[in-house]
Amino acid sequence: MAARQALQVHLDLLSQPCRALHILLACTRLPHTVRHVALRRGEHRTPEFTEINPMQKVPVMVDNGFILTESDAIIKYLVNKYDVPDHWYPRQPERRARVDEYTAWHHTHTRPRAAKVFLLEVLLPAQTGSPVEEQCLMGALSQLQETLDQLESMFLRRQPFLCGDDITVADLLAVCELMQPEGGGRDVLQDRPLLQRWKSRVRAAVGDAFDQAHAVLYALRDRRRAKL
Amino acid sequence: MAARQALQVHLDLLSQPCRALHILLACTRLPHTVRHVALRRGEHRTPEFTEINPMQKVPVMVDNGFILTESDAIIKYLVNKYDVPDHWYPRQPERRARVDEYTAWHHTHTRPRAAKVFLLEVLLPAQTGSPVEEQCLMGALSQLQETLDQLESMFLRRQPFLCGDDITVADLLAVCELMQPEGGGRDVLQDRPLLQRWKSRVRAAVGDAFDQAHAVLYALRDRRRAKL
Repeated sequence: MAARQALQVHLDLLSQPCRALHILLACTRLPHTVRHVALRRGEHRTPEFTEINPMQKVPVMVDNGFILTESDAIIKYLVNKYDVPDHWYPRQPERRARVDEYTAWHHTHTRPRAAKVFLLEVLLPAQTGSPVEEQCLMGALSQLQETLDQLESMFLRRQPFLCGDDITVADLLAVCELMQPEGGGRDVLQDRPLLQRWKSRVRAAVGDAFDQAHAVLYALRDRRRAKL
Repeated sequence: MAARQALQVHLDLLSQPCRALHILLACTRLPHTVRHVALRRGEHRTPEFTEINPMQKVPVMVDNGFILTESDAIIKYLVNKYDVPDHWYPRQPERRARVDEYTAWHHTHTRPRAAKVFLLEVLLPAQTGSPVEEQCLMGALSQLQETLDQLESMFLRRQPFLCGDDITVADLLAVCELMQPEGGGRDVLQDRPLLQRWKSRVRAAVGDAFDQAHAVLYALRDRRRAKL
């Protein structure tokens, strides 16, 4: 147990991949300590944090002195290293390959496209005080629609979760990205019953961990609503 | 052996990730058949190919009926599934995590940034007949420098290969991206002795497979030179 208790993660729960890692840790009950790194206060640029991750990004995992960056790698490492249910990242080569296939695709599709909507609708206006650039936002939403189409037609075709019959780390990474625009009050799955049902399955599978990870995002949404 | 002989890969060797896969297959001597898909002739948009991969992208692997896309996933699957030397994608969790960390980073750094230089300098001018947009190219080269800095300072600091003391699939994916601008006669590692030495080590480790995979890219470079 000593090794597990020495597991630390550095997170900001407003960051999508940090939430995916947070949910996995909650579901698998791996003993760990969370160190909060508030990106909005520039805590990822302090000398202390830069020492741990010169890339100045979250999440970072430190497991008994082993420092690892990149959410995708951290999540897979935890499943490889510790005794957690196999369904999260199956060892059987074909099933594992399905998860690796999604996560590779995720980096260039789901993640940048959902993040861009949040950037244009929430982050940039907050940072610059300027109104939302409607033309850019329309473009970003249209690109996101293409990704949602592919999630439905490629990954959720004939199966309940992105990579098969059971929940995997791919679903966590995906759902946390698709939740991000909610910070601006936008539900990008509103007209997508297939994806909505998938999201409900993910929520049911992870239980309270879902809302716990998203509490900070909900608070942001509610503060913005109160201002309107 | 039957399962292995039933392994097919669909490749265009002008595509960087296809070359990484080609080199891995040559080095590991996994029995396989190559199907060439000429992107420049639109062979990835034929009904036959779309049947195999609705995303219309290469590489695609078909292993005894199991269809897999995404080079990263294909390469890792082959090492997980078959009896190939462990150093390519080590099973030990910390060493494996280093490869997953690089490959996750690769998708948003090395790959798009080196590819953009080739796009601006070779592909777009060939497709449109217009001259190279010098301003854009300067911007892309400057962004690529940042990535090369990080490759040196983060991944090659104190170790001969990107993920440790031995060559892994991460080195294959990286070197094939960094070779791409050579198609336009540009050596992006020209003033980078540390990365040049790394590239020499990769070439030495994979032997003839390197030049075999790059023959089409060299031919493109030589045709362009002959025209000047």
